[in-house]
Amino acid sequence: LNLSLREIADQFDLELIGEPATSIRNIASLQDAKGDELAFLFNSSHKMHLTNSQAAAVVIRQSDSADCDIPMLLSDQPRLAWAKIAALFDSMPGPDGVCHASAVVSPTAQIGVGVSIGANAVVEAGAALADGVAIGAGCFVGECVAIGVGSRLHANVTLYHDVQLGVNTIVHSGTVIGADGFGYEFDRDTASLVKIPQVYGVRIGDNVEIGAGSTIDRGALNHKIISDGVKLDNQAQIGHGTSVGAHTVMCGCSAVAGSTTIGAYCLIGGAVGIIDNLEIADQVEITAMSLVSQSITSKGRYSSGTGLMPGRDWKRNIVGFRKLDEIIKRLRQLEKKDKT
Amino acid sequence: LNLSLREIADQFDLELIGEPATSIRNIASLQDAKGDELAFLFNSSHKMHLTNSQAAAVVIRQSDSADCDIPMLLSDQPRLAWAKIAALFDSMPGPDGVCHASAVVSPTAQIGVGVSIGANAVVEAGAALADGVAIGAGCFVGECVAIGVGSRLHANVTLYHDVQLGVNTIVHSGTVIGADGFGYEFDRDTASLVKIPQVYGVRIGDNVEIGAGSTIDRGALNHKIISDGVKLDNQAQIGHGTSVGAHTVMCGCSAVAGSTTIGAYCLIGGAVGIIDNLEIADQVEITAMSLVSQSITSKGRYSSGTGLMPGRDWKRNIVGFRKLDEIIKRLRQLEKKDKT
Amino acid sequence: LNLSLREIADQFDLELIGEPATSIRNIASLQDAKGDELAFLFNSSHKMHLTNSQAAAVVIRQSDSADCDIPMLLSDQPRLAWAKIAALFDSMPGPDGVCHASAVVSPTAQIGVGVSIGANAVVEAGAALADGVAIGAGCFVGECVAIGVGSRLHANVTLYHDVQLGVNTIVHSGTVIGADGFGYEFDRDTASLVKIPQVYGVRIGDNVEIGAGSTIDRGALNHKIISDGVKLDNQAQIGHGTSVGAHTVMCGCSAVAGSTTIGAYCLIGGAVGIIDNLEIADQVEITAMSLVSQSITSKGRYSSGTGLMPGRDWKRNIVGFRKLDEIIKRLRQLEKKDKT
Repeated sequence: LNLSLREIADQFDLELIGEPATSIRNIASLQDAKGDELAFLFNSSHKMHLTNSQAAAVVIRQSDSADCDIPMLLSDQPRLAWAKIAALFDSMPGPDGVCHASAVVSPTAQIGVGVSIGANAVVEAGAALADGVAIGAGCFVGECVAIGVGSRLHANVTLYHDVQLGVNTIVHSGTVIGADGFGYEFDRDTASLVKIPQVYGVRIGDNVEIGAGSTIDRGALNHKIISDGVKLDNQAQIGHGTSVGAHTVMCGCSAVAGSTTIGAYCLIGGAVGIIDNLEIADQVEITAMSLVSQSITSKGRYSSGTGLMPGRDWKRNIVGFRKLDEIIKRLRQLEKKDKT
Repeated sequence: LNLSLREIADQFDLELIGEPATSIRNIASLQDAKGDELAFLFNSSHKMHLTNSQAAAVVIRQSDSADCDIPMLLSDQPRLAWAKIAALFDSMPGPDGVCHASAVVSPTAQIGVGVSIGANAVVEAGAALADGVAIGAGCFVGECVAIGVGSRLHANVTLYHDVQLGVNTIVHSGTVIGADGFGYEFDRDTASLVKIPQVYGVRIGDNVEIGAGSTIDRGALNHKIISDGVKLDNQAQIGHGTSVGAHTVMCGCSAVAGSTTIGAYCLIGGAVGIIDNLEIADQVEITAMSLVSQSITSKGRYSSGTGLMPGRDWKRNIVGFRKLDEIIKRLRQLEKKDKT
Repeated sequence: LNLSLREIADQFDLELIGEPATSIRNIASLQDAKGDELAFLFNSSHKMHLTNSQAAAVVIRQSDSADCDIPMLLSDQPRLAWAKIAALFDSMPGPDGVCHASAVVSPTAQIGVGVSIGANAVVEAGAALADGVAIGAGCFVGECVAIGVGSRLHANVTLYHDVQLGVNTIVHSGTVIGADGFGYEFDRDTASLVKIPQVYGVRIGDNVEIGAGSTIDRGALNHKIISDGVKLDNQAQIGHGTSVGAHTVMCGCSAVAGSTTIGAYCLIGGAVGIIDNLEIADQVEITAMSLVSQSITSKGRYSSGTGLMPGRDWKRNIVGFRKLDEIIKRLRQLEKKDKT
């Protein structure tokens, strides 16, 4: 691909400063950009990278543009401009709209117009794939799965029976949706655990994206619900009967146990753990690796943990942590004496 | 499926109160149940949900039944009743007892009676699948794997060579058993790591269930052993040479490093980490996201972490944490003066 | 396999003490070894296991050998000797050098000499597999992937388009390399997140090993780089645009968010979390389950967390943690009074 800066400016309605014929063959970071690549200044604090950048041009806020001597596209929201411009240079192979000869598709599956089914994929009885759906190579689509218009499973995704995806939803490789929730009851008579069948399915909304290697269990007493616009990063784990509100973002390796309700527009950091049977309000932000063990009723930012320290300092403070209860008592003792 | 309440009561020997002809088409939570669904009251503290429930009937303890005006099945153990009743309504497709034409099965594999092998599955030389075993679509069953009667691999499971599963064991999709343990030795001559071949296999007992996306490594100097009745949730990670005692439960995303021994009837919470070369006694409970870095010699409940706080409070207390060693010294100083 | 102790001694140039004809059929731990197995004493503190060991012989440091009355192979580096000797007894099936009839290989893929492609694997257009590469059953190798001489993908690995692996690199089952990085920008106009296409690929070096169930995202503004000799354990997660320096080791379930740079020869413990946009120096060691939320500029060992405690003690100390800010104030108050 080779576009002129003018073509990009016109397509996204951005003001162009500098040579309109500047040739753009890709996008890159300011530090990595070569002479025919378009870079971005997202943050004024990175302006020093402008000086040495080899970029052909830069997408930049007007307020940062004063000292810039390479061609520019002005944007109030350079990250949003990035999202849109990047799509032009994306080399991800698109679905081909055909069912590969090696795929095993049940005769009772309903297949829409322009559906792609990759090599060695399996589509079971009663599945319904709407128009434009793309099933990657090696995927397993279980019985009575329904997938909405334009949604895409990358290679080697597994959907158990009775999983529903909305429209324009993306599921990355290795992800498993609809496995049994983790439910057992201890039977004293046999001193062993009895499995609780998980008889409900999973309902995933529109414009959801689910990262690679994630696991989303089915429900035991109601459907698991992932609302519209939710974005889950890689290796997310969602327990049975848990629901996630619209447009909530969960970063990599975050895990939610069963029967918890997460609100809308939340931002869950990486490797956060959320225990079962909680309610998390809308617009809650949880920082990375926090453990949420109580419901959160008001929006805001929450954290746990001790922060990182050099090992020697950490060991000393850990000793103190184990004495915190004692410290408070000793302090109280001193205060009492002090008063008398 | 449509059962009368009487049929369910008879099958599980539960006392019925109310209309025996009440029609039951599914189970559901008290809050979600519609008019032909059977709900459950597991906990007296949820009795308020009884009032507005649309459930056709409820499984309930006698002691909770006084104010309930819908048909009831009385049970001392409503969760155990749930586990048993749910099985009636489970729509999970059963194995079909046939080997799909697209599966690739070695002529030297031993295949029992009624074994199911799904589309595009691969079974390597010397594998032994006992009667009634079900291999899901896209699974890989390595050389000399042995799987006991009635065990089931869901779609896209990978078993490396020399993995053995007992009877009635379930493995969910995406799980990998028998990959190389993580073993290297630094070679000063080349300033690089030399791989230590992991020459032993994995031995998994009867009635084990392993969640989706889990990884269980093979052993280096002895077999990895997962005992009877163990239940691992999704994304569990078990390092090489580690063994897990009978009926122990490990919740989602918990991870155990190599050469650790975990006792029987333990309850390991979600996202718990257990380092290598430890011994954990029987009946130990570890709460979610704790780090276990020392052996545990007596049963009981163990925790680590700081608990969650609003970000501003947390930052202040973190500052305190970093001064704990100093705090103790200052306290001691004051106490010394106080004594003099 | 049946070797004499003499044959092993000769092959690895180790001094032999005792009966050279001692028959060795396998290796094992000191505690597990049976009468024809070779064991290892890695650590003087485990010498008590020598007494009762049934091992045929032991690899041991000269300094530990005084009281040992079974045949011995002397080695200054018993773990390094282990790594080398274990390779003799490894039963892992080697690649067979053929392309299975059920594999789906694009006619435009370049396939070197002696390449193995397993059953039901898929190799897309423009892929280049160098001599001796082994692709396991069920793998997906995306468009324009390049894999160097002798590298091996175990079964059910997924490589998206434009992923490059060096020579002698190993990728374990279930791992996904090159999925989209987790990048979105909030669009106020639609109150929803816009996906940022991740247009760069992944570049993985020589002699890298990547554990099972790991996820390594592609880059948005530059290639993701995993340098030579890096070893990632199972369920590692590497965000987009992050790079990992040569010979760094990351233990199971460790996760790195996007755009972070990790140095060479680092040792990242299990389940460590590293947030985005950090720089970690060379030779940094992070202990298990630590959260790294700031750049680390000098080598050394770092930790976070509170350590594990019995639940009752932990609860008391947690109360103290929440009062740390207050404790410091009260202490200061007492000290002030004390001075006056």
